[in-house]
Amino acid sequence: MVYRAHMTNDELMDLAIKEAVIAKEAGEVPIGAVIEIDGRIIASRHNQREALHDPTAHAEILVLQDAAKLEQNWRLEKATLIVTLEPCPMCAGAIWASRVNKVIWGAPNIEAGSLGTLYNFGVDPRLNHQTEIIGGIKSSECSKLISDFFEVNRQ
Amino acid sequence: MVYRAHMTNDELMDLAIKEAVIAKEAGEVPIGAVIEIDGRIIASRHNQREALHDPTAHAEILVLQDAAKLEQNWRLEKATLIVTLEPCPMCAGAIWASRVNKVIWGAPNIEAGSLGTLYNFGVDPRLNHQTEIIGGIKSSECSKLISDFFEVNRQ
Repeated sequence: MVYRAHMTNDELMDLAIKEAVIAKEAGEVPIGAVIEIDGRIIASRHNQREALHDPTAHAEILVLQDAAKLEQNWRLEKATLIVTLEPCPMCAGAIWASRVNKVIWGAPNIEAGSLGTLYNFGVDPRLNHQTEIIGGIKSSECSKLISDFFEVNRQ
Repeated sequence: MVYRAHMTNDELMDLAIKEAVIAKEAGEVPIGAVIEIDGRIIASRHNQREALHDPTAHAEILVLQDAAKLEQNWRLEKATLIVTLEPCPMCAGAIWASRVNKVIWGAPNIEAGSLGTLYNFGVDPRLNHQTEIIGGIKSSECSKLISDFFEVNRQ
């Protein structure tokens, strides 16, 4: 039997923030994500859109791909995904498509947030899967990482 | 100078349908997609969710990844994406994230369509990119491919 870990939401977010810092050091928009299943962190990724020339290489997509490969199953019904920024439409859609159980996000995504801000795919009763959403964990820290990055790297 | 091809929407959809048939033969939900840039079809993929154990391996995500790799750029501002089924939230989100110029879809997606049915990310003025949407091209043929598949392979 696998016992669930006793990590707090803040401790889980610290792991995602560590990944975001790796992205920053690589010159990528600093967003990080991890996936927990049965109390274990099984995957950990950061945004790599520029390095991979891949519009889908957001932290959430990469970490879902890693987790599904490890599980040998595209259905991640026991997974909690922790991410430093509220997911965009693509990533919130991927969370729905992967049947993720729960999402914990850090900073709100004012421009494209799709688990609370512009849309909330987690609670749309028309979709065939719902996801528990916890938003705003370590929000200031997650948000400052991104705003500091854009102050230095104007896009 | 590259001249734009003179393919009709029906002819473009035939290419996506060919990909969908390849998916069917592999036991995958039969959905296919192609990308046209400057009159050339530069990428062509089908749904491979089961084979790759990847929740994100929808035809649209795979074809966007291929096209961006070929272009060495995640911004696909000159691309037209042709797909046999109206994209789900993840794929419609990926189309937004890739700055795709135009989408031509075949059958409406009653359960999760996000370029017209449940949502329409193509025309949301709050998002920082809009996409021209043409829906319903060869709709019956695209739809029949999928319904025939589910009649044989109950999920």
